[in-house]
Amino acid sequence: MKEIKQALVKAGDDVRATGPMAPSITNFVTIDFVANAQIAVGGSAAMVYMPDEGEVMAEIANCIYINVGTLMPSHGDTMAAAAKRAYEKSAYVLDPVAIGVGELRTKLLSDMKEYPPKIVRGNASEIISLAKMWGLIDSDKGSVRGVDSTDTVESAKASAEALAKFTGGAVCVSGKEDIVTDGERTVRSFGGSEYFARITGSGCSLGGVCAVYASVTDPFTAALAATNAYNVAGKIAEREAKGTASFKVAFLDALSNLAGEDIANCEMEVL
Amino acid sequence: MKEIKQALVKAGDDVRATGPMAPSITNFVTIDFVANAQIAVGGSAAMVYMPDEGEVMAEIANCIYINVGTLMPSHGDTMAAAAKRAYEKSAYVLDPVAIGVGELRTKLLSDMKEYPPKIVRGNASEIISLAKMWGLIDSDKGSVRGVDSTDTVESAKASAEALAKFTGGAVCVSGKEDIVTDGERTVRSFGGSEYFARITGSGCSLGGVCAVYASVTDPFTAALAATNAYNVAGKIAEREAKGTASFKVAFLDALSNLAGEDIANCEMEVL
Amino acid sequence: MKEIKQALVKAGDDVRATGPMAPSITNFVTIDFVANAQIAVGGSAAMVYMPDEGEVMAEIANCIYINVGTLMPSHGDTMAAAAKRAYEKSAYVLDPVAIGVGELRTKLLSDMKEYPPKIVRGNASEIISLAKMWGLIDSDKGSVRGVDSTDTVESAKASAEALAKFTGGAVCVSGKEDIVTDGERTVRSFGGSEYFARITGSGCSLGGVCAVYASVTDPFTAALAATNAYNVAGKIAEREAKGTASFKVAFLDALSNLAGEDIANCEMEVL
Repeated sequence: MKEIKQALVKAGDDVRATGPMAPSITNFVTIDFVANAQIAVGGSAAMVYMPDEGEVMAEIANCIYINVGTLMPSHGDTMAAAAKRAYEKSAYVLDPVAIGVGELRTKLLSDMKEYPPKIVRGNASEIISLAKMWGLIDSDKGSVRGVDSTDTVESAKASAEALAKFTGGAVCVSGKEDIVTDGERTVRSFGGSEYFARITGSGCSLGGVCAVYASVTDPFTAALAATNAYNVAGKIAEREAKGTASFKVAFLDALSNLAGEDIANCEMEVL
Repeated sequence: MKEIKQALVKAGDDVRATGPMAPSITNFVTIDFVANAQIAVGGSAAMVYMPDEGEVMAEIANCIYINVGTLMPSHGDTMAAAAKRAYEKSAYVLDPVAIGVGELRTKLLSDMKEYPPKIVRGNASEIISLAKMWGLIDSDKGSVRGVDSTDTVESAKASAEALAKFTGGAVCVSGKEDIVTDGERTVRSFGGSEYFARITGSGCSLGGVCAVYASVTDPFTAALAATNAYNVAGKIAEREAKGTASFKVAFLDALSNLAGEDIANCEMEVL
Repeated sequence: MKEIKQALVKAGDDVRATGPMAPSITNFVTIDFVANAQIAVGGSAAMVYMPDEGEVMAEIANCIYINVGTLMPSHGDTMAAAAKRAYEKSAYVLDPVAIGVGELRTKLLSDMKEYPPKIVRGNASEIISLAKMWGLIDSDKGSVRGVDSTDTVESAKASAEALAKFTGGAVCVSGKEDIVTDGERTVRSFGGSEYFARITGSGCSLGGVCAVYASVTDPFTAALAATNAYNVAGKIAEREAKGTASFKVAFLDALSNLAGEDIANCEMEVL
């Protein structure tokens, strides 16, 4: 745990020091939240939708963020091209939101098995569904209803570990408590707030922040740094919130004030 | 009025208890506000743009929300298919924002007469224009300038009642005061805030919230529940607002704290 | 300076009095911020993406706003048609965000030399890059990284003046301090906040607000009115901010409370 904490401090501080740009191809609902969360932790944002721009971004950045929400027809080319290029030249974080809905999303996510992400970020149902889609578990469990999970984080542990082993990266499962795994080490991170489920975009923006940290460190440390940052800032924000919208404001405020030390001091346990 | 109030309490509490998902095909400006408002009242949000996804959502949900703002070419297929399917299998709320602008919007809204929504939500000018477009009134009144109404709510009463009779559902007209009608009963709801006209999305998000309530009750009760929720929360928020943005935060906070009882206790009068 | 201040008071107050609509074709990240900022200063917003709607808006409005962020394939036709029509019939404000990235953006911005905007709003790198693209300077300076400038405002002065002379309008360069020029007069505006660089959309929304003021006054006064409004409101907001999100809320609040007098009283110096 000591090494993990040191890596977390360094990741948090390196992002503040270097301001890495983590470009995104993401949904229209929470795009502003993703960008503001990325900037709040010290990174920089750039959202693109044209096929050639996705490829350029995957070359010039260390890590990009792909979120398959609110697909439009042209997203098919853009996301596939960017994921492929990122797989070859850099890395990408995948948020398989709404997995199971629609032909285009199913094709995109299935194809990504050939050029997998370095980090997968999802709720329990999404993680289980992706592990099933890629044939990594043969469980019949896991169901998705829009962005809402119908499974517990605990029930997705095996799927998360299988996915991480397959990709050689990390997986983070978001829920009441969160787990982050690289297939060998699995850590549970505590904190956060029940308000996370009562605003839109806490999951998406966490994925975008994973990409920011993954620009300066390994996938496991990056996924844990992002998860811890959310848990610490969420806990702070809940104290000040008078409802869902003031929670979101207080959360982004807290995120914008976090140092590497704060991220490392989040309550964690190794599973 | 006593029956109406009982239905409102039940609608508000049923949404909190069951968390119904009300998917949307909506504009890009206020999409985040729509989702957060839907979640604040206790529902769940899912935004889609692909034709096949719109149809799926119209089948699995009790009610979807269609807002014709910021159209892009592919919206034509998606909205028409979703509206048709919702007409057959579930229901939809229509926000005819910017009616009269552009060929695609005109075609979409004209065609919807064949498979009408269960709730229409608009400002006075939009309601009058839709009633005219569908040949339900032969008045020459009603003009639209973007999202802003140039007519009074009062002047849209006949159009609203004609639309509600035609659709067999309900219509809500938003303005300084709001009216909700099912063609037989017409109720005026009081409260709200002048700030509603000074932020973007108060109308769109009200439409999205109508769809949440319509997932658990009849169109008239749903439209009135949403309208009352906005009027109660708007009044609370105005007391705390220091300007337009803090109004919006305080409004969503208040919305997230409302119970069925609060919605029923909004000041109303039967016209 | 006295004449400039009188023009600023009048512009600010005329917008409050007449509520001009300044339609936009803008990116999906900050579209909500653009609309809310436009309404906060007293204008009205309308966002479009269909080619025929862009042309209609360019005819019925006095000034529209074009921001080339988050392009999608159909934006090519829409932006070119709207810019052309606005050049002929009204005027437009251009934000050349991410200039240099992608084929479509490069074609759009290159072609706009034939039907130039009345106001260009950008950071130093964007302004230098546009002046180079249009062959107005032969410097090798200027580089762009997403929305972030790598050049100082000072270094863009010659490019800004060259652009303003070419368009016959005005240019505003945003940065730690901001300069506004019509090619003859160049004014530096002071104030603002370091938080502007830590939220997304302060530049985009400033462009949208330029278009609101340009609906009631000349390009130079409009660009300076918008810039001053941001500097005054940013300074007020910084005092109340506890982090990035509460800064944004306080900023929009302050913007929504500004009068023409406040805009004119911003600290300025003629260069």
